[in-house]
Amino acid sequence: MNFSSSLLENAVNEFAKLPGIGKKTALRLALHLLKKEDADVDAFTEAITRMKHEVKLCPRCGNLSDNELCVICKDATRKKRVICVVESIRDVIAIESTHQFSGLYHVLGGIISPLDGIGPDQLNIESLIQRVNKEETEELIFALSPNIQGDTTIYYISKKLADTRVKITTIARGIAFGGELEYADELTLARSIANRLPIDNYVNGI
Amino acid sequence: MNFSSSLLENAVNEFAKLPGIGKKTALRLALHLLKKEDADVDAFTEAITRMKHEVKLCPRCGNLSDNELCVICKDATRKKRVICVVESIRDVIAIESTHQFSGLYHVLGGIISPLDGIGPDQLNIESLIQRVNKEETEELIFALSPNIQGDTTIYYISKKLADTRVKITTIARGIAFGGELEYADELTLARSIANRLPIDNYVNGI
Repeated sequence: MNFSSSLLENAVNEFAKLPGIGKKTALRLALHLLKKEDADVDAFTEAITRMKHEVKLCPRCGNLSDNELCVICKDATRKKRVICVVESIRDVIAIESTHQFSGLYHVLGGIISPLDGIGPDQLNIESLIQRVNKEETEELIFALSPNIQGDTTIYYISKKLADTRVKITTIARGIAFGGELEYADELTLARSIANRLPIDNYVNGI
Repeated sequence: MNFSSSLLENAVNEFAKLPGIGKKTALRLALHLLKKEDADVDAFTEAITRMKHEVKLCPRCGNLSDNELCVICKDATRKKRVICVVESIRDVIAIESTHQFSGLYHVLGGIISPLDGIGPDQLNIESLIQRVNKEETEELIFALSPNIQGDTTIYYISKKLADTRVKITTIARGIAFGGELEYADELTLARSIANRLPIDNYVNGI
């Protein structure tokens, strides 16, 4: 593209560095901001600058936080002895949006994946082990990706915790609501039959 | 969505105000920037701030410009007596990218559309009339949207210039390269037959 303004060109190039945004979309976004009021654009850039420079990681669970401890760890009404282990901050947001979980979290920052060069040392696993020992955790709920890497991670951590009395569970895997049986993959369908639930349980579960 | 950080929430809300960007994409973009180096994020926000506060409109053609006159108007090698009339800055970028036009531009800022409340007074039409008289323009090439509003705008401007000697043309409308005849709409196909070209012309045109 041929821009007659290098200022516009710079802004478009910066937008195009974002994931999933090509040159044409970047141009549309830049021209959109050009048309906006100065105050709106300043609010946009300031929100990003403040997020980048002021957001912290919670030292206890690894979640994003505005202050020292994150709002979830600080919340006195939550069950301190149940920890949900997730891969990323995005998973915390997804689970919080269900309003079904009232325990705490632990963000690993990824899952064990030797092919990608990610071993246990790159993840927040050591801090999880220490936390379970210190906080007298009763249950660890693993909500990791349902694949080999996720299962490896669960196996590795449960081995490390073998001499504690913590109960280790994983979120249910099966047919999604609204999913059609005939399009489900064989592994999922097989697991959902093997892990079938008594109908009472099922109804209570909702 | 439930964010544990209001700083992140602000940034996501600001991203989600951009056209075509929903909440989930906004979250992805915000988390992407969180992972980047401070310097990269500062470059991003600075490029946008500078564009917004420093970009000017060229007083001659209405195109974006870093300085007083835009680079196209300042360029001594371009034909000063041919002006291409376009709707928006985006059209200038599209035509410049073809490297086929060496005249100047005039950005109207829209087209006449009474239904949307846009009349000739809201557009840079008066400045175009003055420019044609002052700069002794030889040809005005209209590159507007091929619809009723575009045609109305061309008609309105050509009436205003009836007593000058400027030649008024419009870009060719017809079947696009790579387009299939059977899928072309009837109006386009009819026009492309009515405005057929001798084969010599066609080959030279490429």
